[in-house]
Amino acid sequence: MNNFEFYNPTNLIFGTGQIQKLAVLIPKNSKILLVYGGGSIFNNGIYSKVKEALNDFEIIEFGGIEPNPNFETLIKAVAITQEEKINFILAVGGGSVIDGAKFISAAAHFEGNPIEILQKRILFKDVSKVIPFGTVLTLPATGSEMNSGAVVTIAATQEKLTLGGSALFPKFSICDPTVIASLPKRQLQNGVIDAYVHVLEQYLTYPHEGYLQDRIAEGILETLIQVGPSVVEKPKDYALASNFMWSCTMALNGLIQKGVPSDWATHMIGHELTALFGIDHARTLAIIGPNLYRVMFETKKQKLAQYGKRIFNLSGSEDEIANDAINKTIAFFKIMGMPTQLSECEKNFDKTADFIVNRFAERGWTALGEKQNITLEKVKSIVEMSY
Amino acid sequence: MNNFEFYNPTNLIFGTGQIQKLAVLIPKNSKILLVYGGGSIFNNGIYSKVKEALNDFEIIEFGGIEPNPNFETLIKAVAITQEEKINFILAVGGGSVIDGAKFISAAAHFEGNPIEILQKRILFKDVSKVIPFGTVLTLPATGSEMNSGAVVTIAATQEKLTLGGSALFPKFSICDPTVIASLPKRQLQNGVIDAYVHVLEQYLTYPHEGYLQDRIAEGILETLIQVGPSVVEKPKDYALASNFMWSCTMALNGLIQKGVPSDWATHMIGHELTALFGIDHARTLAIIGPNLYRVMFETKKQKLAQYGKRIFNLSGSEDEIANDAINKTIAFFKIMGMPTQLSECEKNFDKTADFIVNRFAERGWTALGEKQNITLEKVKSIVEMSY
Repeated sequence: MNNFEFYNPTNLIFGTGQIQKLAVLIPKNSKILLVYGGGSIFNNGIYSKVKEALNDFEIIEFGGIEPNPNFETLIKAVAITQEEKINFILAVGGGSVIDGAKFISAAAHFEGNPIEILQKRILFKDVSKVIPFGTVLTLPATGSEMNSGAVVTIAATQEKLTLGGSALFPKFSICDPTVIASLPKRQLQNGVIDAYVHVLEQYLTYPHEGYLQDRIAEGILETLIQVGPSVVEKPKDYALASNFMWSCTMALNGLIQKGVPSDWATHMIGHELTALFGIDHARTLAIIGPNLYRVMFETKKQKLAQYGKRIFNLSGSEDEIANDAINKTIAFFKIMGMPTQLSECEKNFDKTADFIVNRFAERGWTALGEKQNITLEKVKSIVEMSY
Repeated sequence: MNNFEFYNPTNLIFGTGQIQKLAVLIPKNSKILLVYGGGSIFNNGIYSKVKEALNDFEIIEFGGIEPNPNFETLIKAVAITQEEKINFILAVGGGSVIDGAKFISAAAHFEGNPIEILQKRILFKDVSKVIPFGTVLTLPATGSEMNSGAVVTIAATQEKLTLGGSALFPKFSICDPTVIASLPKRQLQNGVIDAYVHVLEQYLTYPHEGYLQDRIAEGILETLIQVGPSVVEKPKDYALASNFMWSCTMALNGLIQKGVPSDWATHMIGHELTALFGIDHARTLAIIGPNLYRVMFETKKQKLAQYGKRIFNLSGSEDEIANDAINKTIAFFKIMGMPTQLSECEKNFDKTADFIVNRFAERGWTALGEKQNITLEKVKSIVEMSY
């Protein structure tokens, strides 16, 4: 097992009727920037519940944070935060809104050009240098409500870049499973697969000594397989909704990656498909993941076989089980309504592989993955196999 | 799934060679109370590593915290803390030493008689009212290094009582799996079973909607079954030691109990056996647990059957699997060197059941367990079945 530090101070408040606790969770006399996305919170009643709970606070609103939040949008919120002397940010939304809040939190007191936060991957470790923030989660998927990372897109260059650091954990996150009742089926499907592939990125590497970490990762996969197909049909079923939501958080709150290798190449490549074609994040993962496992089969087959045995009860030779496990994964993605080839989403894709490889090369990336053996040549094969 | 709050701000620092980080983990200019137990840290080299790391700090030492730490001992440390104006406590030891540090932390600024902390079960939620503390774990078992609870014995009355609250999480805990190399086999056996029964207390209740919580609990049980018998023979094996240590922490850091019922009656009864006869805590759990499952069979059989199927791959009717699961549990306890009847530890036990039942009645307890249906009559049966 690798050495690790596990630190996660987010106060996660899970269950029905928890929004009213906002009044005691946010420090008295805070001047709040309330950030949200496209306005679904006005239709599902969450906006009015939040406003009611925060009756005694001064609130400035900033709506319109888009999916895959743009630097260009967020920088406007940063200016407001500075001008209005905001001292608490409340994100009400899904991963994009929460990621946006993290960027605003980090950028408001940043000395320098805020774009450097993304371009130079600045880490934020000092809580006195960021603005504290909390979240009300409205879309389970990314785990952003209980981690300190975020992804922001620079629209001008179509780059998805990351920021983070231990100062960027939410102070609290309110996770009410009943909020998913009003979500479109497509978003629920995306959420299940997003969380599932988050786990696979941290699990499908090579055999290691993190026995317990593997067991916990497998537990999340099993739960998502158990509830995923039903929750998208019956999002009002509280047992399904709550396990879906808790699985999404646990998939990316840092726990299962501690002490073990992780891959993340599926995400790196997938981000480019979103940037290029606007394909939903989860769908890019469903397209790239299985083809990556095929191209990297020799590296990953031992872990694929463990996955096949423990999750799908497969038997046979190691190679057979590993191959079957990839097929079972694709089958699950299809049940969840995912495309698994680029051609299902896009017509003009024939130069995609070259484009992505050039993009990576420009950034100085020569290889990805848990063994840094997913070379640019292999990236090309993975993307071409995904056509 | 029940509503829950999950908050755990302990910075867990896991792995080899981490003790030297103490110098940066403890705030500069702290005046430290270094607390430890019977002195094993002098023999295994941990004391000198800690002192070396803390070369630049002023340190007062307080040794001799006993297993099942006594109020009467700890109150002396409280007096020193007050007199010396200690502002950081470092616990170097196992669960007893860490529990002791929590009591000292809570009692030093407590307005009132410190015995009330235990007798009135005072909760500590305000970090400004306690002294911050960190830990260097030397004996995996209790999870105290990553939770906010503690058990303290009042020697005068032979009562084991609890304290806790969100202000009593360690600021950090250093968990170095190599420290177990010098531990006696008996302590390692106890650690494995202590963690295993911690999980069972939070798992063997009744079927509920915490599907993910069950999967994670099962993952810890599987890991302890996998590594337990070997780690006590080969404690220098890092893969075994690290999984053992991480499993113990995960068994009782609060995660698996969130949103689900828990029992803890085995602990309540077991504590009395320790208080009465000085039997090691883990051994009391091995003696009481299986007999409690037998007496409460009708209540617990559905969950016992799930446990039997998923952990031991048992098949048959629900009753058969549930019964076999109890037998498999006893078999595992025996492999781990545990007694499973009181007669293996003690000769004069014939009045134990009456004594414990009277003790509970004096405290006003009428029933225990996840359904509060383990009446005093049932407690009597459980203890008598344990003779």
